[in-house]
Amino acid sequence: MATGETKKGFKPVAGVKLAALSCGIKDGGVEDLVLFEFVEGTETAGVFTQSVFAAAPVTIGKQHLEQKRARYFLINSGNANAGTGEAGINDALLCCQSLSQVTGASPEAVIPFSTGVIGERLPVAKITDALEQGKALLDENNWLQAAEGIMTTDTRPKIASREILIGNKTITLTGIAKGAGMIQPNMATMLCYIATDAKVERGLLQSFLRDCTEKSFNRITVDSDTSTNDSFMLSATGKSGLEIKADNAKIFVQALESLSLELAKSIIRDAEGATKFIAVSVSGGKHQKDCLAIAYSIANSPLVKTAMFASDANWGRIFMAIGKAGVKIDLNKLDVFLGDVQVMERGQKHTSYTESKGATAVAGEDINITVNLNAGEIEETVWTSDLSHEYIRINAEYRS
Amino acid sequence: MATGETKKGFKPVAGVKLAALSCGIKDGGVEDLVLFEFVEGTETAGVFTQSVFAAAPVTIGKQHLEQKRARYFLINSGNANAGTGEAGINDALLCCQSLSQVTGASPEAVIPFSTGVIGERLPVAKITDALEQGKALLDENNWLQAAEGIMTTDTRPKIASREILIGNKTITLTGIAKGAGMIQPNMATMLCYIATDAKVERGLLQSFLRDCTEKSFNRITVDSDTSTNDSFMLSATGKSGLEIKADNAKIFVQALESLSLELAKSIIRDAEGATKFIAVSVSGGKHQKDCLAIAYSIANSPLVKTAMFASDANWGRIFMAIGKAGVKIDLNKLDVFLGDVQVMERGQKHTSYTESKGATAVAGEDINITVNLNAGEIEETVWTSDLSHEYIRINAEYRS
Repeated sequence: MATGETKKGFKPVAGVKLAALSCGIKDGGVEDLVLFEFVEGTETAGVFTQSVFAAAPVTIGKQHLEQKRARYFLINSGNANAGTGEAGINDALLCCQSLSQVTGASPEAVIPFSTGVIGERLPVAKITDALEQGKALLDENNWLQAAEGIMTTDTRPKIASREILIGNKTITLTGIAKGAGMIQPNMATMLCYIATDAKVERGLLQSFLRDCTEKSFNRITVDSDTSTNDSFMLSATGKSGLEIKADNAKIFVQALESLSLELAKSIIRDAEGATKFIAVSVSGGKHQKDCLAIAYSIANSPLVKTAMFASDANWGRIFMAIGKAGVKIDLNKLDVFLGDVQVMERGQKHTSYTESKGATAVAGEDINITVNLNAGEIEETVWTSDLSHEYIRINAEYRS
Repeated sequence: MATGETKKGFKPVAGVKLAALSCGIKDGGVEDLVLFEFVEGTETAGVFTQSVFAAAPVTIGKQHLEQKRARYFLINSGNANAGTGEAGINDALLCCQSLSQVTGASPEAVIPFSTGVIGERLPVAKITDALEQGKALLDENNWLQAAEGIMTTDTRPKIASREILIGNKTITLTGIAKGAGMIQPNMATMLCYIATDAKVERGLLQSFLRDCTEKSFNRITVDSDTSTNDSFMLSATGKSGLEIKADNAKIFVQALESLSLELAKSIIRDAEGATKFIAVSVSGGKHQKDCLAIAYSIANSPLVKTAMFASDANWGRIFMAIGKAGVKIDLNKLDVFLGDVQVMERGQKHTSYTESKGATAVAGEDINITVNLNAGEIEETVWTSDLSHEYIRINAEYRS
């Protein structure tokens, strides 16, 4: 079975129940409140935004994770509870206390999350009034509803599972994510939750999560903008009865990375206004930071992104973006490819390159831009979307 | 007279002649070739792009400036001669040699400049065939024609003059600039040429230019993209008979800065698709680099720029952009203003702020975003444009 993907469906995770409901933050009865309940003994690891203005729920969530094992996640969409100062901190705490009263868990066992408009006070009463109903809805099969409940400008829910066999035991990992704009996560994506029924000690779980973030959510960018609310959580209930330790971790880590990357890529597929899915790979580098600087310089260039939107093989803009990245490189070693088509060889236009070959390479939805510095062994890939009229329309109309 | 602006017209500069003509790089007989001729004895200073892929003319121009006093600038639009390797270097040299034969000046006294599409070979014959005609057209009054001849996606020429009185002598400074996209100059703008009839020793001229660049062209951004061809040249013919030295430089430097800033701002006014002119000021900083990092983070944020396009006082996105800048700041000291309207006070929404006040502050074409860190004495301002449908249209259609 190995790291088989379950594309159409998802697998519930023993020890995890979810609920999604409308509490009235968004108009029209749209689901805007999500609850996770974890069985006792569940270990949870988290990584959070590195914005210096981390939102109130991020501040509280980090503190609570240090203090108690998490039993509940309380997630609202439609309001980010960011830029709300001390009042926002108190609002987040009030929500945790209220869920504590409803469930009997301690307030520190509740981790709050918010996503939506920045700078507005959280409507605490709407949330707390809905918690009894939320508790009643908790069910192992509600993953898809939860994925829908955390959406903002997303057009579709993002959900994926992996099942792996270790010895004679099957372990499940299932995750949901949200995000379509304000996406260049720095530590974690807007919101992503993965749960597994493996048993994993807390420190090991945190290191799995940190490494996996660097290979998935920290490699995507929609618009170079970093949210105040990014959070990526990994919970291990232990209900499978199998413990993952350093010596049997390989297959588990592979499944975790594969699942995270699928969810991260699904954010790019659903990026605001996106018509293209673009992988930017920089290989042959001496240092990881150089490869990433060049890859992000290309992936965030408005001129590269508008050319890709136009299916225009305008490699001059890619060249420009490499040049402005601030990395010292040897132009005489530079190779650039669009898909399989070599555009530049050793710093000059490849002799066999033609506009029509280039046009074919960028015609489809999936575009690969590959840069080889031919100076070292390091390779990094980031994923991004194009910049379209629809991006402007969405962000000139939507309040995020 | 001091630093009086001559908004409608411009003043020719004694010792400088110009010509603009069509050599056929662009279709339809559009002017695409510009010549400057400087009287013998003229001193010229230059600052150039810091892209690691500086275009061929930038490489040659820097060398020639070291070797000889510049007598001619040879500028073409429609082709950037960038990403063209050794062949591009030879093409630029051929153009210099050809103008040398036509004028009798040495090849090293010719400084070449190119702007336009990246990655295509320069059509050398078209340029060299036009040089005799160009020489015949040289005239002191052709500044406006020259400003038009260097345009690419620009919709209007950018030209300005200053006249200053020092003692009983009048000194003139006149400049032209071009640029509308691929604009976040790093050292200099796309192309800007300023000439004066003052006499200024070369080293002093270079230091005036460097300082002035930091207060003008190095403070504007359209799209965060840095050109391979940025060049900013300052030529002093000495024909006024007055020498500027350290002890009488103040009024000259003021006029130079005022003129450069006017030209830099005119690039933002004419930015691709721009409907807004946005000044982003960050004050109260401890370090210049912190103020600039925050100002550019706001000015380059696609989410801030689309909100401004929509005349939406979405200050949450400004808050987000400050947070992602990577600068350690004290949230509890942060003040944010839109125009005169205080939005945030000490890290929270100002109690008197209303949506309607915010809407008024961003309704017009000119928008001021002011951030006060209240932590030091440093202030920096950068200027930018909004991100509109028209930007996407231009850059999905135009080949730059």
